[in-house]
Amino acid sequence: MAQVEKLSSSKCFEGYVCRYSHVSSSLGNLEAKFSVYWPPTTKVATEKQPILYWLSGLTCTDENMMMKAGAQRICSELGLILVCPDTSPRGSGIPGEDDAYDFGTGAGFYVNATTPGYSQYYRMFDYVTKELPQVMENNFGVKSSKKSIFGHSMGGHGALICSLKLPGEYCSVSAFAPISNPVQCDWGKKAFGGYLGAENKESWRDYDATELVKKGCRFPKEILIDQGTEDNFYKQKQLLPENFQQACQSTGQPVELRYQEGYDHSYYFIATFIEDHIRFHAKALLS
Amino acid sequence: MAQVEKLSSSKCFEGYVCRYSHVSSSLGNLEAKFSVYWPPTTKVATEKQPILYWLSGLTCTDENMMMKAGAQRICSELGLILVCPDTSPRGSGIPGEDDAYDFGTGAGFYVNATTPGYSQYYRMFDYVTKELPQVMENNFGVKSSKKSIFGHSMGGHGALICSLKLPGEYCSVSAFAPISNPVQCDWGKKAFGGYLGAENKESWRDYDATELVKKGCRFPKEILIDQGTEDNFYKQKQLLPENFQQACQSTGQPVELRYQEGYDHSYYFIATFIEDHIRFHAKALLS
Repeated sequence: MAQVEKLSSSKCFEGYVCRYSHVSSSLGNLEAKFSVYWPPTTKVATEKQPILYWLSGLTCTDENMMMKAGAQRICSELGLILVCPDTSPRGSGIPGEDDAYDFGTGAGFYVNATTPGYSQYYRMFDYVTKELPQVMENNFGVKSSKKSIFGHSMGGHGALICSLKLPGEYCSVSAFAPISNPVQCDWGKKAFGGYLGAENKESWRDYDATELVKKGCRFPKEILIDQGTEDNFYKQKQLLPENFQQACQSTGQPVELRYQEGYDHSYYFIATFIEDHIRFHAKALLS
Repeated sequence: MAQVEKLSSSKCFEGYVCRYSHVSSSLGNLEAKFSVYWPPTTKVATEKQPILYWLSGLTCTDENMMMKAGAQRICSELGLILVCPDTSPRGSGIPGEDDAYDFGTGAGFYVNATTPGYSQYYRMFDYVTKELPQVMENNFGVKSSKKSIFGHSMGGHGALICSLKLPGEYCSVSAFAPISNPVQCDWGKKAFGGYLGAENKESWRDYDATELVKKGCRFPKEILIDQGTEDNFYKQKQLLPENFQQACQSTGQPVELRYQEGYDHSYYFIATFIEDHIRFHAKALLS
């Protein structure tokens, strides 16, 4: 496995925010960047600690969470490692990949693409669930078996499907304003059509949290979701958390969907409730 | 006075981050933007509350502080209004104003320029100390007499000179990695040469915190400064907090200069110590 290169390091709440680059086999051997917050008690490469994975939303990179959410204060206090991958491969050269904010670059949707061109590069599901944990274990000696996952919007969708498709892999899962039923919304239809094929709608269900729950996938603990009531994308029916909640209720999957009055889709919403979510994950990771 | 227009509003820690636009008389009638965090207990236009002004550094806008520092959590708890102006006028059309990161757009240095062209637009000192507090009072009914000021880098310089030049105006002042002796560093020489004239070096001293203290200006309370030891601009002698400290010590101006081991010049440094600074200001503002 190719070694990771450290691009930058900034001390933050006694720990360090570090940005790394590596050649990713899941992403067609393109260069991939990711960011890690190392809490102060982490002894890199000697002590093994649990990891919290954060998946960002459309147009984001590995840096948004670190810069905007204020998560480091709490991860520092609790001694949690926070890992933030990018939201897509970059620079594949596929024609049109940079043309839209909601497809291609910055919009990988955490699936393994099967369509011509994309299937070679856009394998974010494998990247997030297999390659990146392996990179963390091989390069930094942290235990890959103890991990949790959360995310925002497209990344909330990502967190939900990763945890539902791989039971036993994650200790806990939560999401902010997740795209909860992508086969039913415009964002999801466009992305899944492009990455999985317009004709292969049956395969779309394998990357849809609501459909996965309906099919019988289960996460063994309660899933936590926060949704702002003034979120324009929620109002436009791009997120559909109510569909996910309904599927959970009718199949016995525990979920807590909290509607947060007046909050929108921005990182100001995430920053407000990030402490809640991290402490929720800490309970599962540190117990 | 022209009315302010609200550009956006996002709920954050039960309060709101709002961005406004107005026509600024100090800045040659150009459109100026500023951001405000309204804590949840603020009754806009009815209750009068103290204001904490934040001045950002080179290349920043009114948004950096709101997005990156995590200040809202603490301002929400304490009920403090946080106001962040832009770092320069924008769109004056002066030839070359967009050519460098450290002069012109995004680099107003909080002075009243006197050189041809710039003197019409680059009057950030008046904007920050007079016009913006007036805008806050006239449009939102908040009491302009109870205010404090802090900032980062170029904005730390701004906070220091505003408080030293206007004794009695601010209840407290603090700075992160301030440009503390601009007449002695490359950034300051370039900016002051351009805004005040290369020939008018005597006038530069009126906008230099270290020189102001040497000349006898005093702030009636202790000034708080944090400086990271791994700050590249500190190592390059752009900041020179030791000069300011020395001037304070030799003239009896109380100052606490804290060297923070391992921290750099980024917002990760600011985020780490922002709570300290806001609580420092709250002591003065809420007493």
